[in-house]
Amino acid sequence: MSNSFGKIFTITTYGESHGLGIGVIIDGCPAGVTIDEEAIRIDMQRRKPGQSKITTQRKEEDEVEILSGVFEGETTGTPIALSIRNKDQKSKDYSHIKDTYRPSHADFTYDAKYGVRDYRGGGRSSARETAARVAAGAIAKSLLSSLNIDVRAYVSKVGKIGLEKGHHQLNLSKAEENIVRCPDEQMAERMISHIDEVRKSRDTVGGIVSCVIKGVPAGLGEPVFDKLHAVLGQAMLSINAVKGFEYGSGFDGVEMYGSEHNDIIEKQGEKVSTKTNYSGGIQGGISNGEDIYFNVAFKPVATIMNDQESIDKEGNKVTVSGKGRHDPCVVPRAVPIVEAMAAITIADFILQKKTNRI
Amino acid sequence: MSNSFGKIFTITTYGESHGLGIGVIIDGCPAGVTIDEEAIRIDMQRRKPGQSKITTQRKEEDEVEILSGVFEGETTGTPIALSIRNKDQKSKDYSHIKDTYRPSHADFTYDAKYGVRDYRGGGRSSARETAARVAAGAIAKSLLSSLNIDVRAYVSKVGKIGLEKGHHQLNLSKAEENIVRCPDEQMAERMISHIDEVRKSRDTVGGIVSCVIKGVPAGLGEPVFDKLHAVLGQAMLSINAVKGFEYGSGFDGVEMYGSEHNDIIEKQGEKVSTKTNYSGGIQGGISNGEDIYFNVAFKPVATIMNDQESIDKEGNKVTVSGKGRHDPCVVPRAVPIVEAMAAITIADFILQKKTNRI
Amino acid sequence: MSNSFGKIFTITTYGESHGLGIGVIIDGCPAGVTIDEEAIRIDMQRRKPGQSKITTQRKEEDEVEILSGVFEGETTGTPIALSIRNKDQKSKDYSHIKDTYRPSHADFTYDAKYGVRDYRGGGRSSARETAARVAAGAIAKSLLSSLNIDVRAYVSKVGKIGLEKGHHQLNLSKAEENIVRCPDEQMAERMISHIDEVRKSRDTVGGIVSCVIKGVPAGLGEPVFDKLHAVLGQAMLSINAVKGFEYGSGFDGVEMYGSEHNDIIEKQGEKVSTKTNYSGGIQGGISNGEDIYFNVAFKPVATIMNDQESIDKEGNKVTVSGKGRHDPCVVPRAVPIVEAMAAITIADFILQKKTNRI
Amino acid sequence: MSNSFGKIFTITTYGESHGLGIGVIIDGCPAGVTIDEEAIRIDMQRRKPGQSKITTQRKEEDEVEILSGVFEGETTGTPIALSIRNKDQKSKDYSHIKDTYRPSHADFTYDAKYGVRDYRGGGRSSARETAARVAAGAIAKSLLSSLNIDVRAYVSKVGKIGLEKGHHQLNLSKAEENIVRCPDEQMAERMISHIDEVRKSRDTVGGIVSCVIKGVPAGLGEPVFDKLHAVLGQAMLSINAVKGFEYGSGFDGVEMYGSEHNDIIEKQGEKVSTKTNYSGGIQGGISNGEDIYFNVAFKPVATIMNDQESIDKEGNKVTVSGKGRHDPCVVPRAVPIVEAMAAITIADFILQKKTNRI
Repeated sequence: MSNSFGKIFTITTYGESHGLGIGVIIDGCPAGVTIDEEAIRIDMQRRKPGQSKITTQRKEEDEVEILSGVFEGETTGTPIALSIRNKDQKSKDYSHIKDTYRPSHADFTYDAKYGVRDYRGGGRSSARETAARVAAGAIAKSLLSSLNIDVRAYVSKVGKIGLEKGHHQLNLSKAEENIVRCPDEQMAERMISHIDEVRKSRDTVGGIVSCVIKGVPAGLGEPVFDKLHAVLGQAMLSINAVKGFEYGSGFDGVEMYGSEHNDIIEKQGEKVSTKTNYSGGIQGGISNGEDIYFNVAFKPVATIMNDQESIDKEGNKVTVSGKGRHDPCVVPRAVPIVEAMAAITIADFILQKKTNRI
Repeated sequence: MSNSFGKIFTITTYGESHGLGIGVIIDGCPAGVTIDEEAIRIDMQRRKPGQSKITTQRKEEDEVEILSGVFEGETTGTPIALSIRNKDQKSKDYSHIKDTYRPSHADFTYDAKYGVRDYRGGGRSSARETAARVAAGAIAKSLLSSLNIDVRAYVSKVGKIGLEKGHHQLNLSKAEENIVRCPDEQMAERMISHIDEVRKSRDTVGGIVSCVIKGVPAGLGEPVFDKLHAVLGQAMLSINAVKGFEYGSGFDGVEMYGSEHNDIIEKQGEKVSTKTNYSGGIQGGISNGEDIYFNVAFKPVATIMNDQESIDKEGNKVTVSGKGRHDPCVVPRAVPIVEAMAAITIADFILQKKTNRI
Repeated sequence: MSNSFGKIFTITTYGESHGLGIGVIIDGCPAGVTIDEEAIRIDMQRRKPGQSKITTQRKEEDEVEILSGVFEGETTGTPIALSIRNKDQKSKDYSHIKDTYRPSHADFTYDAKYGVRDYRGGGRSSARETAARVAAGAIAKSLLSSLNIDVRAYVSKVGKIGLEKGHHQLNLSKAEENIVRCPDEQMAERMISHIDEVRKSRDTVGGIVSCVIKGVPAGLGEPVFDKLHAVLGQAMLSINAVKGFEYGSGFDGVEMYGSEHNDIIEKQGEKVSTKTNYSGGIQGGISNGEDIYFNVAFKPVATIMNDQESIDKEGNKVTVSGKGRHDPCVVPRAVPIVEAMAAITIADFILQKKTNRI
Repeated sequence: MSNSFGKIFTITTYGESHGLGIGVIIDGCPAGVTIDEEAIRIDMQRRKPGQSKITTQRKEEDEVEILSGVFEGETTGTPIALSIRNKDQKSKDYSHIKDTYRPSHADFTYDAKYGVRDYRGGGRSSARETAARVAAGAIAKSLLSSLNIDVRAYVSKVGKIGLEKGHHQLNLSKAEENIVRCPDEQMAERMISHIDEVRKSRDTVGGIVSCVIKGVPAGLGEPVFDKLHAVLGQAMLSINAVKGFEYGSGFDGVEMYGSEHNDIIEKQGEKVSTKTNYSGGIQGGISNGEDIYFNVAFKPVATIMNDQESIDKEGNKVTVSGKGRHDPCVVPRAVPIVEAMAAITIADFILQKKTNRI
């Protein structure tokens, strides 16, 4: 029950880090969406390992094969199956952890749940699964771009180094010009240096990815449990290593008064808009046409290169040595994943909205 | 599609603020759970309006009628329908907002979505809906208590006044001894004074509710999209006025190094546990047996008693005057709501886990 | 997971035969549907017990209270809760069966499943639950009638007495003119006499309800698992006492050749239609604009007034004597139930279709 | 929303007749099921085209690749992806039908629904999709066989040639000894001759597949909408070319009296059983431990080799000539498909039952 997301535009992913491959079925994508295979390729490149000195050195081409649901460049309304073969899996790197529970990994919890696990590279718990999400997200983005909706994420914090400026003070398109994906050039350099230091000290560090969605029409989101931000929240919290989610004023809004926080509504020409946007583009769980924006907190990656104490399956003390190829900081590669999950969520709500009026 | 929550232990709520009544169907509750009607009544009292000087003065008894699914004090496995009649709805209080869009309310967004709305008291968008959740939560708590799982929420921040201590440094049972539901007596007094001032200035203020779940067995939560914290996050973000969710180290974890953040695993007697608990009791989306803890950020209530500018349906400028009966700060009454949604989420995952092994 | 039906237009029912009441939540009904309370009342009358000499003599007014989701006579898009109180439940009639397993009833199977059951009047397994479906069906019919779709069921067979004519040779509106709901007056009289004889002999007999849906646009139904007829089939088979479902040529189609069975397509004016309609208005699981028609087979009611051998919970032999008030033949009262489930199914597919194209 | 089936043990299929490949993701299969790859291969052989003179001559090896969810021969609880590549697709065979609506095919209805379709070999509407179901069914059978549940289907009728004997009078294991899959050798020969004649006359003919499930424990099936037979019915009706479904006494039960039809319950040793089994092993939608049996009616295949009149997209009259490679009668190859869908349905209900008691 756990590997699907969405109500109408639905994705179901499969695959383990070191199995034959991973992939996704998108069910419920409407017919008539033009698919840009190059756009899929670009997003896969943005997520793929080995793309820069501050990411893991595992090499995966992450080529996406479209097996169904697209005919002559257009979606047909039938399920879209996207397949990605694993190529550079070095399973022998993991034989040493077969019976070991690594700290803050999912080794122990998978065993507690299933009584068995594919231990190679973390198996299903590996962030490799997110490659399938990015592929599906690229399809969702195609749908959104036909409606002039734009989803854009960027790194706003690495460790203690965080942007002071809000999204409306930044030129977000500059985020892709550097390897850490921060739209402020100077901050980007500081972040990159910091990650590099952390990597050299064989440690890891956390960060924040921020995201802005522009062009969302008013009226998306379902009342009560499937509020737009509640489903966005689930989507983001489902990404590996995420510890928190806030939208609009977020945790800072706690300290505000109602008289400050309320967004005054006005009408400019035909468009209803708000003077401020502490609501983050969502009121009562439903979009109001303003920019939707949110922050996603990532913890430091659990795999570090220094030795750690732990236990094995039988409870014996063991030493875990960092092996394999891993990221010192996950946020640069998380940017396209956040975008993908945001795009999938919005696409789903667009379809849901079509059923609101007879 | 929007008014249900859960995969196996499923709740579906209905009702508007000023309609005939509200309620909930719980489908999928297993047979054999002993129902304590007094426990339901107590939780309803904790959420109900008019309970103290710092809450809205609307008077609702919020008596819950169990229409089905319980026979001779025990659940039968069939749907449990819980009905709550509205009694003190004063709809005339709201005729003045029939065509008005109140700032940071859902008036405009419901219209944008459905083209029509029950404007009385916010209709479906009112937090009155959460009374149904609390009733359902009391059933979930009955199920959990038979498994020795304990869910406890409390107020940890009001405006800028926040607890410094973590949950393990507090005696949480003291939270119910004061009207703001903060377990630290001195802080509670400061919070109460602050809310009272805010109320007198005809304004509102935000706050944080924290929650701890003890006794959760290892192995709950589903990999990938339905990670335990992702579904908890959706559950919390679906509560009215919530702007953010974080669990374990949360947003603070961003600034940490992996070598600090990793929770070292050890075995004490038969029990596998961790030295620290930055993971918040969840690793890879699955519980590890440690305490689950999280924070939920609430914005200041949108209804303030001071005048505000806004527009009506036609786009004309109007002045919105605060009328009706409202809370100056939502967090004291939100405590049982947070508990209810947490209990429902955990109950669902307990049932899901039963299907993990053949 | 078992008490809901539908993907977008979703119904969830609750209630036991002799509890406080039964009811239904309709979630996903679009806004803007005009609700005709009189139409609900009429359908409830058609299903209610005690309506004629050939039905059970239990007296229930079956008044439906609309608790939410309808404002000023129109749906608002929020959940519609419909409540029906039980009034004439005579629970003492059932104390004698508390520990008895009645033949071909669900007493034993509920115990096997849940380990406990509300034995009064069959509890949840009673056909009383279908009153909630009829109420929900009346809302679905309101939606369909705004689109000029007409759902009409009738009795086509009682025991061995069956209509020879197909639906296109009958004036279906005449079905409501007699108490057995057969559109052929002479056959109706024979059926009524037969049921009356069966009743006098303290026995029961089976029958067939046929149904025709006119005005369904081409393009409804989802490929593969949710074919229009597959979901209709589930809907019908979910009605108490149903043993079979066939649509279009049905079981007779087995004996035909492809060259006979194929429906030749032609275009008349703007409308694509078929010369014959062995397909029953559905091809590849999707409506083609022709009449949809199907048959539903009902077994003889299990409760008979004559004594029967059986066992009790402990396996002791017991004699089951027919008590209580029951139908000698279920089909006359099943007509509005079949219509309700058909209307609900079509309403759901209409909403699903809205999401097929971007 | 249409390409998934099941609540816990869930399958989602993808793929078109002449695309790159087809496949299925099984989500929710419990950990610990031993997978027998040879059993998958055998079931695929039973369904595959070109297996005998009475089936289509398309050649597909239908090799199944297990991409995920199985580790060291055992399921891990994570999604099982099964991939089948198309090899012998001869798309040029279909260019002539690009704009043609074939009689009793889904060409027109897919266009009405989606506005676009992959016309090659029927695209998604082709029965080729059922290969993915058979692969998933083999996994479900592995699960069932560990619980000693046996699913066995056979051909009981071809055109007018039907078995007189019920399943308990037949040795079902003999069904696989002949190419038509009828357990009565003499009838099998008559059926084979008949299909061969039909093939030579360039026509097609219908048939019935019967199925028996032995060893199902009492207590499976969910009350109300997801009655065991209702979901089995949907499963069967979702198979291409199916027109009807009946279980137990089925349509014949209509003509019986309650006093005949009721299955008297008795206890033999520890086991509760019934003297007769008109209920088909299901009472109130829940299994009672007796054999579950049902019939599935298949229409004659729509593709015939003789010329037929039809229209094209623009409404012009055209002649459809039979080309491509097709089955004169679908039932011999439908046997493993019926078994697969039955096994998947039962597997799902076994998991659902685990959640019925706390």
